[in-house]
Formats: sequence, C-alpha cells, structure tokens
Amino acid sequence: MNKIFVIFFLLFGFTNSQAQWVSLIKEDLKNWEIKQGNAQFKISDGVISATSILNSPSTYLATKEFYSDFILEFEVFVDKGLNSGVQFRSLINDDANERNKVYGYQCELDTDEYRRWSGGIYDQSRRGLFLYPLSFSEKSRMSFKNNEWNKFRIEAIGNIIKTWVNGIQCSYLIDNSSNTGFIALQIHSINKVENVGKKVSWKNIKILTKDLEKNVRRNQSHVRVINNLDNFLSDDEINEGWKFLFDGKSSSGWKSARGKSFPKHGWKINDGILKVLRSDGGESKNGGDIITIDKYSDFELELDFKISKGANSGIKYYVDTERYQASGSSIGLEFQILDDFNHSDANKEIYVYEYDGKNKVLVKNYIKSNRTVASLYDLIKAENLMENRSKRPVYPETWHRARIISNDGKVEHWLDNIKVLEYNRFSQVFKSLVEYSKYSKYKQFGQLNEGHILLQDHGDEVSFKNIKIRNIK
Amino acid sequence: MNKIFVIFFLLFGFTNSQAQWVSLIKEDLKNWEIKQGNAQFKISDGVISATSILNSPSTYLATKEFYSDFILEFEVFVDKGLNSGVQFRSLINDDANERNKVYGYQCELDTDEYRRWSGGIYDQSRRGLFLYPLSFSEKSRMSFKNNEWNKFRIEAIGNIIKTWVNGIQCSYLIDNSSNTGFIALQIHSINKVENVGKKVSWKNIKILTKDLEKNVRRNQSHVRVINNLDNFLSDDEINEGWKFLFDGKSSSGWKSARGKSFPKHGWKINDGILKVLRSDGGESKNGGDIITIDKYSDFELELDFKISKGANSGIKYYVDTERYQASGSSIGLEFQILDDFNHSDANKEIYVYEYDGKNKVLVKNYIKSNRTVASLYDLIKAENLMENRSKRPVYPETWHRARIISNDGKVEHWLDNIKVLEYNRFSQVFKSLVEYSKYSKYKQFGQLNEGHILLQDHGDEVSFKNIKIRNIK
Repeated sequence: MNKIFVIFFLLFGFTNSQAQWVSLIKEDLKNWEIKQGNAQFKISDGVISATSILNSPSTYLATKEFYSDFILEFEVFVDKGLNSGVQFRSLINDDANERNKVYGYQCELDTDEYRRWSGGIYDQSRRGLFLYPLSFSEKSRMSFKNNEWNKFRIEAIGNIIKTWVNGIQCSYLIDNSSNTGFIALQIHSINKVENVGKKVSWKNIKILTKDLEKNVRRNQSHVRVINNLDNFLSDDEINEGWKFLFDGKSSSGWKSARGKSFPKHGWKINDGILKVLRSDGGESKNGGDIITIDKYSDFELELDFKISKGANSGIKYYVDTERYQASGSSIGLEFQILDDFNHSDANKEIYVYEYDGKNKVLVKNYIKSNRTVASLYDLIKAENLMENRSKRPVYPETWHRARIISNDGKVEHWLDNIKVLEYNRFSQVFKSLVEYSKYSKYKQFGQLNEGHILLQDHGDEVSFKNIKIRNIK
Repeated sequence: MNKIFVIFFLLFGFTNSQAQWVSLIKEDLKNWEIKQGNAQFKISDGVISATSILNSPSTYLATKEFYSDFILEFEVFVDKGLNSGVQFRSLINDDANERNKVYGYQCELDTDEYRRWSGGIYDQSRRGLFLYPLSFSEKSRMSFKNNEWNKFRIEAIGNIIKTWVNGIQCSYLIDNSSNTGFIALQIHSINKVENVGKKVSWKNIKILTKDLEKNVRRNQSHVRVINNLDNFLSDDEINEGWKFLFDGKSSSGWKSARGKSFPKHGWKINDGILKVLRSDGGESKNGGDIITIDKYSDFELELDFKISKGANSGIKYYVDTERYQASGSSIGLEFQILDDFNHSDANKEIYVYEYDGKNKVLVKNYIKSNRTVASLYDLIKAENLMENRSKRPVYPETWHRARIISNDGKVEHWLDNIKVLEYNRFSQVFKSLVEYSKYSKYKQFGQLNEGHILLQDHGDEVSFKNIKIRNIK
C-alpha cells in the first residue's frame, strides 16, 4: 500500500509544484509601472505595499507584460477600512472622457464587514458594476478574513474566470468582455481622512501561463455560475436544468396574451433580441403583452433587458389570462421594468381619503415608490439588500439582468445579480399588502400554483435577450 | 441490583394499578341517562356507542352520579367527519332560553385534520369558546389518530384541569367556572347528510376519585398553561418569568403618556379592574393614554379586556412618546380593540386618487378591514389562523383575552388563545405595508428595539384585568 501511495504521489501529487509558476515579485519594481494615480508603491523583503492618500484617483501598479489565459496566485493584507483589488486583463482607456483610466476585470478586496465581497469580480471603469458579486453564497462571503494575510487564486482561461479565497471558491464567471491586458495592484482613492496612510500589501504573487487545463481546480458546489455570453448555455447550466425560453431567432414558445398566436406587429425578433416596439406609451395597445405557452410553478427565471429612455415594461409571473378579466395588461405579480429617472410612475403622487359618513377627509398624501425598476409593481420597492447603499441604477440603452426566483411561496427579485426584494406570497402580511394595492380587487392575487410568464407591451421600446428558466422541483 | 429493582417496583411500580379505579362501563346503561337530544346509545361487549342523526340537537349520555375532583380515563373511536366530546363537571341549564341544555367543560374529540384540537377543552353552551384550544403545541395536535382507538386521560383536581391523548399532554388549564357535575358522552348534532349514521364508541371508561395527588401525571414541557383565575399567577407561570403589569389595586407601574403621573381622571381602578371611562369617543381627550413606566424589548404580554357597546381602544407596543410628536394618541404598533359590530372603523370606506400631472384620478375605492378587533391597526387584518372558519367574535360586556408575542422581530397577535396574525416587523414586506398605511410619515415605524406598552383612551369605556408580561431573553 505504501509503495502504491508513493507512486501515486509521484505521478499526481507534484503536478502543481512541477508547474512552471513565475513569480511577479522581483528584487525591484522594474517589471511593474504606475498607472492613473499618485500613490507610491514600494517593495521590501518580497512584499509590495502602498498606502492610501487623499486627493488622488485610484493608483495601480501594473505589470508591463500582458497576460491572457493564466492562473494567478497571491497573498494580500488589506488594512480594515480600505477597499482594494487586483486588476487583470486590464487596459488603459483612450476615450476622451476617460483618458488614461485603468479599466477591466478586478478581483475585489473588500474589508466591509457588512458586504464581504472579497473574491468577487468588479468591472472597473467600464460597466461600473459587479460582474460577480458574492451575493449567492454565505460560504464564499465568509472566506476572506480581515486583518490577516489572505490567499487568492484567479483562474482566467478563455471565457471562464474563477476565483478562490483561502481555498474557498468565490466566483464562477463566464464573460467575454476582456481577453488580455495587464495585471495591476490597486490602491483605491479615499474620501475619509481616517483612511489616510492605511496600507495594502501583497506577497508571493505568482503566475502560471502554461499547462493551465492540467492545473485548474474543481468547482465547489456552493458556487453559482454567472453567464454573460449571449444565447449560450454552459454545460453546468444545462446540468442544473436551465433552458432557453427564447431561442434567439423565433417566437417559438410564446404567444399573445390575448390571442392564440404571436402578435403580428409590435414585437420584433432579430439577432438574438426580442424587442417590444415603441407605440404611444399605452398599456397593451399595440402588439400587446406576450406570454409563454407553458405554465410554471416553482422556477428561476433570468433575462437581460435594455430600456429606451423613459420606458415602461415588466415581467409578470403566475399569470392566468382567463381568471382575471382586466382591460389592459393581464394580471400577475410583476417585476417592474422602468426608467426610474425619466418615467413619472417612479414618483407618483397619491391622495387617500376616508369617508367619515358625511365627507371625504384627506388622511394621507404621499409619493409612491413601489413602482421603480425591479420592484414588485405597486407592492414592494426594490432596494439594495446586499450593500450599505441604495439600489444600483438602471440606465437607458444599457443591458441589465433580471432574475426572479419563486420557490414554495418564497419569491426573490434580483437586479444585476444583487437581491433587491424578497417576500412570501402566501404570508398574511403579503396578503395585507395586496389589500392596499391596486390588485385588491383580484381574488387570490399572487396565490396561483402555476402561471405563464409575461413580457409587457407598455408602448415603449424595451429589448430582451438570454431569457432562460429552470424549474425548481 | 436486581433485588433493589424488585423492591423499588413493589413500592412504586404498582401505585397506579393499586389505585381504586372504578369502571363506568357496567352490564347495562342504568348508571347513565340521556340528556338533551334524540340519538340512541347502546352498550355491547363493554363498548358504549351511538350514531349521529339529523334534526336533533347534540345528545349526551350522562352519568347519574356527579364528580368533582377525579382522574378519568377512557378509549374512544370517532368516525372521521364527526365532532364529539366528553363533558365533565357539567350541568343542565335552568335559564329560560337555554332550558335543558347541557353546559360545562368538554374534552374535545376533533376529527378535523386541519384543526386537530382533540384533547382541548371547550366551554360547551356557556362561553361557547375553547378554554384550551390546542393552539400552542404541534406535538399535542398530532397526538390524536383518526380511525383508531385513542386513549384519553382527564385530570380535574381543584382549579387545575389537564388532559392527555395517547400519553401526550394536550391541556393545562387553570379555571374555576365549574367545580362539579356529571360526566357525559356526546353525539354532536350534524347538518350534513353524509354524516348520518357515523358512530362514536367508548370503552374502558374508568374513574379515580381517591388519592388523586398520588396519581397525577407530571407536566410535559411542550404544554403551556392557560390561567383564567383573576389576579393570580401560578407557580409554573412565575417560574417562566411572568409578572403582573397591574397589581389590581393601584396605578403602580403606569403613568400618563403625556405627563409624569397617572391621569387624575378618566381612568378607574377597582376590584382588580383597570377601566378607561367613557367620554366623547375622541382620541386621548379625557384621561388620555397610559403607558408602562418600564420599556420592553422582546416580550410576551397577556391581558383580558371587556368592551362596552361600540367601543374603540387599543394596546400599543414599542411606544416612544418622545420620538413621534403626534397630536392624538402616541405612536406605536397597535393591537386594536374594537366593537367590530357597532363601530364604523371596522368598515371604513376609502378612496385613493393618483395625480397624473394634471388631475386626481380615482384609482381605488374600497372598504378597509384592517382595523377590526385584534388586528394590527391599519396594517394587518386579524383572521382565524388556526381553524377553517372566520375569526371568533368579540362581543360587548364579555371578557376576552389578548396576547402579544414579540421575539426577534417576529410578532404574533392572539385573541382568546387563537393566533390571529403574525408578521416580521423588520421584513421588507412589512415596511412596504407601513408605506401604504397612515404610519408612513413616522420614520422607522415599528422598528424600535424597545418601548412602552400603552393602553388607549379613545373616549369609550373599556375594562382591563390580569395584565401580565414576561420578558423573552
């Protein structure tokens, strides 16, 4: 037995250490160069460090060399209070407005004890959002330790990017927005005086660029894939039961909410995109709403949407077109799609009167905020449930991701991979909320066991793509 | 060891079988007599049985002998679909309206799979409510098996009444409304033809009337005590941390919500009762609201209340008299007290207008139902969460029990020992509900960590007694 173990160890045990890792830590910093900001980096005893300064944009110490496919490992110590990161496949912007700015993938270093997104992937100075926030797994969120050295690993091979912090997988991103660029250590700009002089240190930075497939780590089951490729399902997604609800080419699987076939006009399918066309801003007056032919019970739905300026639309679920005879759009729970900044529904003024037997008495005058984008329309306002900040905005003419998860009554809305609301549609408090809303006249609103998925025609141009669904058993 | 065991067994093991149990099953039914209805009872092979008939009130087979303190055991088989029971300490009513009606304690036999209250104690033809519903313990609710023989045990000693079903404790009631009477087997009246001919059978009915204290069973920890004695805390309640918030004699522990001392007028303390006096029906205009001097964080509050006809009052919790500067009653979450049948607030007509930029457009006109008794005022309508029927009514001039449990954000309202609502005051959906309510103008409404308990003066006569509280650690 011992002999067999030794042979096994010789064959496989040394694979990793036999790999040709190259250290990025040298005697001096000549293999690196400063980008963008004014903070100073120094090297001493194999440790590269920098301290944060006021009145400077973020400063980056970038490799002179570019790396495309690689496995990178490093250890990092970030003083609490700072936010930092390690850029990869990053470049310098040439645009007039953004000249000399570093942009690209950033492996997040996050000392915020509330958020804990270290090991997530931020799209630095490009989309300005997290391509992979650590919003799905508590295990991932707990992997980074404040006031300690933490071991990071980034695998970037083709379109697949994965990260590990102290051996715990944090990200699994499929994305093709960058394929090469430098690696860079970030000292973030600061705006609080108490963070002046705080330090970030890196050591044991090493990179592997050959024999990558032999050296990749296995996925850990707690990590969810975020796939940003258009009209593509990965093997892991297919194994989890994901299917396209829209084939990118035809109206197959969809029909008019009011008729038997797909609307003859008002909707356009082209180049992987399903688009509701602009008419007069009215509800279901042009092509009308479309629904899936199939019904869904417990499910997870994901899609990307792009609004035009001032647009209104929505994704409804548990839709029953027969049960409720509404004149406009069919009735269902609705993930609202809205241009919060340019549509009046985001800030509707409401007056409530009580009848005291003789007169109507004004008891309440307020601004309704439960019709903003990603809200449960007219019921629950979307909020950022995962960061100590307000909901990240949705702008016209940019793609954003909606996700709806409904399982055994518990429903969640997600916007750009951040949870923005949750409720139990069978709870007494939810039913009490419905009583106050415009849905109170529909018996059993939100209580159906199954229903269609609906995309709304509200007379404004809105595009959808990558519409996919997974049944939850 | 064996010898010691044998001695121990001889000393204690036979205690129960040595007790002088008397069988109530004889050769014939001469020790019993029929009361009230027309159903037939028969005895055969030691089994007493009866079948249900249409067009008859409930029929009882009652012992000729009266029993005061006793331990009763029996086995019973109830056909599914029927409701039945075993009366004890029961009597025949002499009142003109109720003449010849059996009334008194009933050990419930409940084949309803939704409710499952077998082993609970119903106050038959007296208060018409469950003195001990099986609303606290799932374990108790699961003890009775449909379509099987079930073993029951009732201990009625002094003011303490306990029941067991198949060895699982179901009730622990402290009550003094009956101290003697017959034992009677019930065949319930029926109103469904499909229940005609269904049967209830009893066997092995035996009673112990001597050496009771030696033969009582130990309490099982899942069972909660319901105490109906005035101004009395049992040892078990004291051990659980219950304390009186009102000593029955003075205003000790209470003060005006608006001042430093207890109101000089408008409230009356007499004979264990704290009463808010009738003025003009206005909010906090006479004596004004009173609050506990202490603040409470996580707690369980119980009290009995009695409304006068058309009355309005309330129990508020998490009250901060400084934080919210309201003109009328102080602001807090409110267990509403109302005469649902004689106060307009139970059915308030509401009109909602949206301002579309030019005009106010009526979008909703409805009847508000979240201000009924036991509701979370203006937020969540009280419902019967434990029976397939509507909320049991609260009538003027009768005592009813309110219970509020607040633990780590999860709040419950109970009315007469039935849960009528539950919510998480920290949840997003609760906050969304507050936005719609009249409380939306109060920042952080319902979110305080601690606050006073308040009793409301709404200008109507309402009495309170047995006000007690337990801090939850």
